[in-house]
Amino acid sequence: MSSALTLYSYWRSSAAYRVRIALNLKQLDYDLKIVHLVRDGGEQHSEAFHALNPQELVPVLMHGQRIVRQSLAIMEYLEETFPDHPIMPATARDRARVRGLALAVACDIHPLNNLRVLQFLEHDWNVPQPERDAWVKRWINTGFSAIEDMLRDNPSTGDYCEGDIPSVADCCLIPQVYNARRFAIDIDQYPTIARIEANCLASEPFDKARPENQPDAPGSGDS
Amino acid sequence: MSSALTLYSYWRSSAAYRVRIALNLKQLDYDLKIVHLVRDGGEQHSEAFHALNPQELVPVLMHGQRIVRQSLAIMEYLEETFPDHPIMPATARDRARVRGLALAVACDIHPLNNLRVLQFLEHDWNVPQPERDAWVKRWINTGFSAIEDMLRDNPSTGDYCEGDIPSVADCCLIPQVYNARRFAIDIDQYPTIARIEANCLASEPFDKARPENQPDAPGSGDS
Repeated sequence: MSSALTLYSYWRSSAAYRVRIALNLKQLDYDLKIVHLVRDGGEQHSEAFHALNPQELVPVLMHGQRIVRQSLAIMEYLEETFPDHPIMPATARDRARVRGLALAVACDIHPLNNLRVLQFLEHDWNVPQPERDAWVKRWINTGFSAIEDMLRDNPSTGDYCEGDIPSVADCCLIPQVYNARRFAIDIDQYPTIARIEANCLASEPFDKARPENQPDAPGSGDS
Repeated sequence: MSSALTLYSYWRSSAAYRVRIALNLKQLDYDLKIVHLVRDGGEQHSEAFHALNPQELVPVLMHGQRIVRQSLAIMEYLEETFPDHPIMPATARDRARVRGLALAVACDIHPLNNLRVLQFLEHDWNVPQPERDAWVKRWINTGFSAIEDMLRDNPSTGDYCEGDIPSVADCCLIPQVYNARRFAIDIDQYPTIARIEANCLASEPFDKARPENQPDAPGSGDS
């Protein structure tokens, strides 16, 4: 029998990467359905996927027949539905800090640099590659600079963003660091982020979730 | 004695508008501190405000000495800390739906159109006004079209986004509709959104939170 959890994912989607980490941290089995975001104009724009998510974005989580959309909503849903192996801290204060860090990535960095926006800049505005790269770097550096301050200046920061247990904040941060490296941003400018990234990537739940370890990654035989 | 809650706000900030609605729905008194986002290059970039929020964005909530950043994290914090007059539904399933709708605004519409991005397009890229307006409309219409589908096709939608009690989803949607109207978007294209907006604006918690009813709005004598 197939797992009750199915994740619609794409190897390079950083929002899907967040949820893969969360599922692994919570030790939940899941089926993976690949939505190829580039091939044939993007499978996310197909009628079948639109019915699942009118936003035409991944990830989507199916829990039985239930559809859950938006990576942060999915992670909160997993936490509430499967409380073992928590990815949120125990107090309202600490949860607020974790959510604040997660949203600093999910609202103020990632949406400016995701595929549909870069496609718009390229095809609708004919923005040349160097300017598009500068755009991406601008918003990542603005965001990382603030996040570095918030991590460095707070005694709650530990091996991970909040204490010594990985949380939703790390689930958001690590995929964003992956994107930053794709755009050749020097992460050593942000020593606390770099330290947390190293801690995360050394652990199996993060490693298994990496884009290059997905079945649809180029070279995996399924792309 | 001053209230234990202080909101750093600007009348036209749609993220601050969300939190004003939430505070009103929860019947919480709060002190308002105005951060003028335009005057003198933007008070959010001052050293004093940077210390409060390295992201240099409003809103920020102070609860006593505790700093809470990011509008969605603030609303979740308020809900957990002051459970009376809930702004989140009772089940994990319904909360996931509310968060999914809220994040469809807060991640996939608003960040593309906020002040710092429009300033970048104007000053760094010299994008002319008509193209900047088209950019704003593009992301609002893309987002509203999906949100309209998600609201219209779901029996959980009631007088408000989720049933007949306003939630965090409405707190996010209504400020985004306000922005859409500023850019002359025809909201009647989205009949479910238009109906929910009318219901919300007819109630005092939403009305009191409106930009034009803020003390720093032009014509209020404090701007």
